[in-house]
Amino acid sequence: MKLPKELIEKFKEPFISELENYINSEVELIVKVKSKRLLENKNGQKYLLITFEDKTGILRAIDWFNAEKNDSKIDVGNVVRANGKVVLYDGRLQLNILQDSDIIVLNNNEYSYERFVAESKIPIDVIMKDLNNMIKSIKNYHLKKLLEEIFNDKELSEKFKEAPAGLKIHHNYRGGLAEHSITVAKMCDNLSKVYPWINRDLLITGALLHDIGKIYDYVINPKGIEITKSGELIGHIVKGYEIVEKKIESIGLNEELKTELLHMIISHHGELEWGSPIVPKTPEAFILHMIENLDSKLNRIQNIKEKELETNPDKEWSDFDPNLGRRFLLKHIERG
Amino acid sequence: MKLPKELIEKFKEPFISELENYINSEVELIVKVKSKRLLENKNGQKYLLITFEDKTGILRAIDWFNAEKNDSKIDVGNVVRANGKVVLYDGRLQLNILQDSDIIVLNNNEYSYERFVAESKIPIDVIMKDLNNMIKSIKNYHLKKLLEEIFNDKELSEKFKEAPAGLKIHHNYRGGLAEHSITVAKMCDNLSKVYPWINRDLLITGALLHDIGKIYDYVINPKGIEITKSGELIGHIVKGYEIVEKKIESIGLNEELKTELLHMIISHHGELEWGSPIVPKTPEAFILHMIENLDSKLNRIQNIKEKELETNPDKEWSDFDPNLGRRFLLKHIERG
Amino acid sequence: MKLPKELIEKFKEPFISELENYINSEVELIVKVKSKRLLENKNGQKYLLITFEDKTGILRAIDWFNAEKNDSKIDVGNVVRANGKVVLYDGRLQLNILQDSDIIVLNNNEYSYERFVAESKIPIDVIMKDLNNMIKSIKNYHLKKLLEEIFNDKELSEKFKEAPAGLKIHHNYRGGLAEHSITVAKMCDNLSKVYPWINRDLLITGALLHDIGKIYDYVINPKGIEITKSGELIGHIVKGYEIVEKKIESIGLNEELKTELLHMIISHHGELEWGSPIVPKTPEAFILHMIENLDSKLNRIQNIKEKELETNPDKEWSDFDPNLGRRFLLKHIERG
Amino acid sequence: MKLPKELIEKFKEPFISELENYINSEVELIVKVKSKRLLENKNGQKYLLITFEDKTGILRAIDWFNAEKNDSKIDVGNVVRANGKVVLYDGRLQLNILQDSDIIVLNNNEYSYERFVAESKIPIDVIMKDLNNMIKSIKNYHLKKLLEEIFNDKELSEKFKEAPAGLKIHHNYRGGLAEHSITVAKMCDNLSKVYPWINRDLLITGALLHDIGKIYDYVINPKGIEITKSGELIGHIVKGYEIVEKKIESIGLNEELKTELLHMIISHHGELEWGSPIVPKTPEAFILHMIENLDSKLNRIQNIKEKELETNPDKEWSDFDPNLGRRFLLKHIERG
Amino acid sequence: MKLPKELIEKFKEPFISELENYINSEVELIVKVKSKRLLENKNGQKYLLITFEDKTGILRAIDWFNAEKNDSKIDVGNVVRANGKVVLYDGRLQLNILQDSDIIVLNNNEYSYERFVAESKIPIDVIMKDLNNMIKSIKNYHLKKLLEEIFNDKELSEKFKEAPAGLKIHHNYRGGLAEHSITVAKMCDNLSKVYPWINRDLLITGALLHDIGKIYDYVINPKGIEITKSGELIGHIVKGYEIVEKKIESIGLNEELKTELLHMIISHHGELEWGSPIVPKTPEAFILHMIENLDSKLNRIQNIKEKELETNPDKEWSDFDPNLGRRFLLKHIERG
Amino acid sequence: MKLPKELIEKFKEPFISELENYINSEVELIVKVKSKRLLENKNGQKYLLITFEDKTGILRAIDWFNAEKNDSKIDVGNVVRANGKVVLYDGRLQLNILQDSDIIVLNNNEYSYERFVAESKIPIDVIMKDLNNMIKSIKNYHLKKLLEEIFNDKELSEKFKEAPAGLKIHHNYRGGLAEHSITVAKMCDNLSKVYPWINRDLLITGALLHDIGKIYDYVINPKGIEITKSGELIGHIVKGYEIVEKKIESIGLNEELKTELLHMIISHHGELEWGSPIVPKTPEAFILHMIENLDSKLNRIQNIKEKELETNPDKEWSDFDPNLGRRFLLKHIERG
Repeated sequence: MKLPKELIEKFKEPFISELENYINSEVELIVKVKSKRLLENKNGQKYLLITFEDKTGILRAIDWFNAEKNDSKIDVGNVVRANGKVVLYDGRLQLNILQDSDIIVLNNNEYSYERFVAESKIPIDVIMKDLNNMIKSIKNYHLKKLLEEIFNDKELSEKFKEAPAGLKIHHNYRGGLAEHSITVAKMCDNLSKVYPWINRDLLITGALLHDIGKIYDYVINPKGIEITKSGELIGHIVKGYEIVEKKIESIGLNEELKTELLHMIISHHGELEWGSPIVPKTPEAFILHMIENLDSKLNRIQNIKEKELETNPDKEWSDFDPNLGRRFLLKHIERG
Repeated sequence: MKLPKELIEKFKEPFISELENYINSEVELIVKVKSKRLLENKNGQKYLLITFEDKTGILRAIDWFNAEKNDSKIDVGNVVRANGKVVLYDGRLQLNILQDSDIIVLNNNEYSYERFVAESKIPIDVIMKDLNNMIKSIKNYHLKKLLEEIFNDKELSEKFKEAPAGLKIHHNYRGGLAEHSITVAKMCDNLSKVYPWINRDLLITGALLHDIGKIYDYVINPKGIEITKSGELIGHIVKGYEIVEKKIESIGLNEELKTELLHMIISHHGELEWGSPIVPKTPEAFILHMIENLDSKLNRIQNIKEKELETNPDKEWSDFDPNLGRRFLLKHIERG
Repeated sequence: MKLPKELIEKFKEPFISELENYINSEVELIVKVKSKRLLENKNGQKYLLITFEDKTGILRAIDWFNAEKNDSKIDVGNVVRANGKVVLYDGRLQLNILQDSDIIVLNNNEYSYERFVAESKIPIDVIMKDLNNMIKSIKNYHLKKLLEEIFNDKELSEKFKEAPAGLKIHHNYRGGLAEHSITVAKMCDNLSKVYPWINRDLLITGALLHDIGKIYDYVINPKGIEITKSGELIGHIVKGYEIVEKKIESIGLNEELKTELLHMIISHHGELEWGSPIVPKTPEAFILHMIENLDSKLNRIQNIKEKELETNPDKEWSDFDPNLGRRFLLKHIERG
Repeated sequence: MKLPKELIEKFKEPFISELENYINSEVELIVKVKSKRLLENKNGQKYLLITFEDKTGILRAIDWFNAEKNDSKIDVGNVVRANGKVVLYDGRLQLNILQDSDIIVLNNNEYSYERFVAESKIPIDVIMKDLNNMIKSIKNYHLKKLLEEIFNDKELSEKFKEAPAGLKIHHNYRGGLAEHSITVAKMCDNLSKVYPWINRDLLITGALLHDIGKIYDYVINPKGIEITKSGELIGHIVKGYEIVEKKIESIGLNEELKTELLHMIISHHGELEWGSPIVPKTPEAFILHMIENLDSKLNRIQNIKEKELETNPDKEWSDFDPNLGRRFLLKHIERG
Repeated sequence: MKLPKELIEKFKEPFISELENYINSEVELIVKVKSKRLLENKNGQKYLLITFEDKTGILRAIDWFNAEKNDSKIDVGNVVRANGKVVLYDGRLQLNILQDSDIIVLNNNEYSYERFVAESKIPIDVIMKDLNNMIKSIKNYHLKKLLEEIFNDKELSEKFKEAPAGLKIHHNYRGGLAEHSITVAKMCDNLSKVYPWINRDLLITGALLHDIGKIYDYVINPKGIEITKSGELIGHIVKGYEIVEKKIESIGLNEELKTELLHMIISHHGELEWGSPIVPKTPEAFILHMIENLDSKLNRIQNIKEKELETNPDKEWSDFDPNLGRRFLLKHIERG
Repeated sequence: MKLPKELIEKFKEPFISELENYINSEVELIVKVKSKRLLENKNGQKYLLITFEDKTGILRAIDWFNAEKNDSKIDVGNVVRANGKVVLYDGRLQLNILQDSDIIVLNNNEYSYERFVAESKIPIDVIMKDLNNMIKSIKNYHLKKLLEEIFNDKELSEKFKEAPAGLKIHHNYRGGLAEHSITVAKMCDNLSKVYPWINRDLLITGALLHDIGKIYDYVINPKGIEITKSGELIGHIVKGYEIVEKKIESIGLNEELKTELLHMIISHHGELEWGSPIVPKTPEAFILHMIENLDSKLNRIQNIKEKELETNPDKEWSDFDPNLGRRFLLKHIERG
């Protein structure tokens, strides 16, 4: 489903986030049309205002020369090849479409959909290094071994690094699962200092593995992130149990530790109505649920904030978010 | 945990349900004290009214001779050895305690607790025969093979025949799991005639296996039925998935069939808040949930009715049942 | 509100489901426009792709000759008269609109709206025969008499045969009430074999009558099925009580049987929040609720499945269904 | 079930509320034992402190002479005959049991249970007069006639005057139904002045009839107020509909008025989960629900307040009330 | 934010509600376009049917002369200046657009947005007079003084008279807060006659002040009513507490009265899930909650009814109202 | 309400937690009777087994000499003076009551109830030092000043150090409020490292102040912790708002910061149904809610664990906890 590496390497066209290196230069871009409007200035001249996007950001573009022609050619959602000059306007980057350049709509096989799949802002290598350090800090021999076996398992670890942690709600981008897992583990680590009676090794092992079943829940394809049949009919809670239980079978683990660890995985949604078949009944399971819930919600808030402000930097309040059941103050007071 | 068969055979003392064969004879019983009251007749004579019970029923007993002595000797909940004459009084059996006979309180090791563990009214052999016939009626080769492998697996099948289907709510007696499983399967069989577009083989396979995980949820011991650590921390939904998934791994099964069957097991509680991590998303899963819910509730109603009428045959309404959230009409009009 | 029988007989135009008898013939159809799209083939030729429907199914039609003209003439929702040739294309029937034939939009009085009111796939006569056989199987004289009086009552029985069992949720077509009632009764009949302590006669009587009040809830008119003022302000639960209570008054019935039967009618929604003013408190009322709930939901699932697959035979998952709160697997494994 | 009038007339013994006319006199009382405590004063003298009650109030009594003997003779809940002298102590009435007088426990047939059935503090004749005046104020001829027919119907009106409006929750005393009905009607009358667009006649008719079905829900017998089989299986919402619908059938009423009035009766609980099969969909139905809810709750608050303060005049907070889900401030600031 | 009085006085153009004084005269109006349709009569003549609105009502208008030109000029939502002749047609007022008159679209600064902000149908002076009379009827010196201090406070009283009581749900128009407050107080006054044990002074004081915090929740601006940052982050329950608590601090009040009054303010939403941090625990707080809830809902019902019937006088049922969760019978039987 | 310091100093009797310094010595204790049982050893000798408690722990005691006499003298709940010898038995401390020593029941005025009021295991001075360090770490001048003003305010700070954070649910002991506040602040501090976009100063200020209103919710008196009238009628959410708002008024603060800080206080319960009148709408408010919820629940779990294991060191599962809706695994695997 993924393009071969060689092919991806061939892409010369810069990403939107790289355009700050091209100010006042002409570039050729492969971008998706996010929105467009045909307007008229005071002199009656038509111009076309477009917002382009790729996985790295959004870009304002203006076509002063072929406004009507290009307007009829492109639709929102099209992926296009466009040539223009990168300029700074009002403090933000803008692409001025060249006069003698057509905007060309591309077919699916003329570009890599990977250009448009969002991914974690933290490079996956950084995440995995943090994760390996976290594993090294585990003192319990068997738990550390279990983690090593899972994250050194070629199939599991390949999928883990690619997987999103969700479709829409949170960490819904490539690498989201890994980012979420390590962030939760870090908070659990901090917490185990505040509550010294908590079993740190168990807590961190659970934190790193709690969503591992999601590697079978989603697939990234040209349409974006889609849920799999296994994701709909079985789900990551039970799949995560299966993955970890089988790995434990193969390497052995004290029965009590095994039960408590597996309990953490299946109870991490915290309540039956949120999809855990069993509620947390150990302190570690309880903490894991609350911390992973916190990280999920905060990631969602952060994403909403960034996305809405990127589009409209003056917006004070977010739109109503049906998932969280409220609007958020976008313009809250930032760290001074 | 169970007494060896030889030992059980040795028990000579009849069960309460067998006493109709002993009318006007003297018997020695091993029974549990369910309640007792020291009363006085019009002539000022003290007598002791006791209700005994074993797993087969309850029995009224009267001690006219050593009322006060025996009253001070026995407590509610004690298991005792008692000698008396079986008589018919007011159309019901009664035990008249003999004059020269002491009621003796027994220690745990002086009787088998099996005497007091309720069991299915349908003999387990009859249930298992029905179950095997049901398996034979399956046309899909792989599903039939899967069922045979599971119910011929010595460990699984031994446990299956002993297991209750619950602690309190329904089928909470030895053999209850098997009784529930076959009853649900029979109703599903009937239903597949009314809805011919339903996959009968898949539906019946799911019906027979849906609660199989309960074999690890409960243990029967001298205190009665108790929930295990696995029952509390993992639960039968996930355990059932594990049992069936591993058996499928060992014998092979078409991937789609496997997913749909496992989906039926984990979704059979029907709603997240009732403990299924995924709601039913196939017609067969949906039916299985509704039918097994119906059988659970009806078994509970039937048990409440029998138990309350056994104690008080004139009671019109049941006590309020917190599980079902209502009182039931005990004296509803029976089949004419 | 209904057209006289004679008028309906006059209709010569075949229904869509009858077209398999007309392959390669020219026909004149009266159909509703479900959707349409004006397209262009590789040679730049415009053609109009239409989906027609009547109460018996949907039909793909193509107009190669007057695409633009007919596109501007018809709107989605119009009922039209169209002439074309029935052909087999890609294994499915298709209507090729004739070159010299105009598609004509009809007024309300130029066709019978009955053509577009869906109806039960089981002929009403078959349903009523099943129902009469079910009544004959009742052993209790008074319950059987009550059923006969109700289903022989001219007004009640006329309405019963016409009525849908719902607006949207389930059995929302002519004859749906009768189909639902007999299906529920059949399942209750099967169930009374599995639970022999249940009062079969009472259960079946309740099953056949439980939704009788719906005859006053809906009206079928040119706009489709609409809810009546009585349906909005009183509802079928109370209306059903009134119908049956009055009929009992006129023919007499043992007071206890009367109360239990009426209780079944008003409690059949099972929970207060689902519209029953009283929850089921007898085993028969309990079973009736669960079985009629099962049939309602299964009918909905079956309808969704058929409708979505008719439109798109390759669809794997249904759309999200707000009533059931989930998507369904359309491509589940059918009976082998 | 009620004693004949003649017998009741025979009772000479005063009620507790009448004792203020007997201060410093000796009286013979028939009272129920609400609580008792055997105590010892500083000189080591035993005395028995009893709280008596009848339907008119509670009374503190002290036995200085036969404390131990009488303590062993009476149980809480017994109805007794007691002789004593009425005195004022600490500003409250008290009964000093006479030295030479035995407290005698009475059998069920030695007293009328009516003595202990609480009743409305407003005499039923006053309530019914108010109700008749309210009926006279109705301008719509048919609604007024309907009310007259119902409240002049001998059977209905006899039952109406006796009936409580509940078992426990509110107006749970003889005459409670009538008191509740007229109070709700009065508030609706007031409200119709504030909202002149509301149909006053319809609103008041609905207010007076909304709970009429309760005449078949409860029975007053020696055990107190009990719910009937009809109350459990049918309930007052549907019974009220039946009573009013049949009376309308017999006297005739405009179809629309009939539907809206019956709608008010079945929707007056306001929400499905509170037992109305249909929610209020007219302004009058909406108001009726909210006002009758207000009166029910206030009556409950008032009863709790009176009862708790009668027992302990210094109590600041009520006990937690599970029905209302809170404690109430008993010592709130009274009207100045 | 408000236009100066002088400017408002200058408006010559009549409001829609004043047009009954202009029948058969020509008028110039400033109105908003609510809807429009370009139609054709039988002779093929095009005409433009417009619905205009201002804060006083809606008006049907027809343009027979420049239908197509004006149709292309105006959009729904535009505020326009239009000249026409007022005529009676079919019993309703109608504006016939003049032949030689252009409809002119106005900019924001060419009209006062006040023309389009709905306001209470009861003039604010009438409301405030009622309110002052209600204050005078209070007997408790301190409560009366508190009310006088608040409603004589220039800032508070100015805001109070302008404020709406909501954004959408109820009393969502200028003066709505004052109208709601006095209506609730009047009903509480009536109620205190039916329940004489209630503290009338406290109840009325709470009624008048319960929503006072809303003066900081909303702002009326050209876009209509908008919620403020304080409204989103603090809300009127806590703001109302703050206003009243500070005023009490400044004038003094018995501690108990203060606590009970403030309790009424913060508990008036009645349930935690409706936004009160504490549920009502005094009778007065309880009544206030129920009465203010009743008035809120009735106002909403009345508004829906008026608005839907104004648009379509023949409509029998309202649209589904998501806030109240139902449709309402618009054509209920009015007071005879 | 508290005893003067001098008096407390006078107490010579050691606390239970100090007894490890008295092994094999005779001591005089002032302790509360938690439970007692009169038993008989094999030789028929009676002995009295008592469990004593004070605020520092529980203690097993045995009286071999005056078992029956002392049994009749003391009741569960009594505070007594007892003399005995401290011994080690089965690895746990035990008090052997002396032969010639009477156990004496004390009146309320013969001991300080402070002995029995539980308090935080962390000394209040340590907590306050942590808190002051936390304040020092705040960089925003105004927030730091606000915290200093509040925690240097004599009245507020005295109450803050004494207050519990609850009646039953969590931190229900002297110093519990301070312990909870600083623990939440520490976790928020850690968290602000993981989410660097969060406003640390604001978050920590909110954490330290969120429950400050509880200083008026509870009072510690001889009966234990009781809720005040203000606690019942106003509650700590609104009281906390009032305290902080007034302090801000007196020292001044940027309007935006003020609103966001006050928003954090009133929204910290997270959901309306948990008593916040407004849900969190800023990231800091959101985090504060989740972290303080986590600390509350963990404190409850920890307390349950300690208390149940103290009584029965072999218990595997806690009792069902109605607040958390589950049993907890007491014997979970501790940090290795």
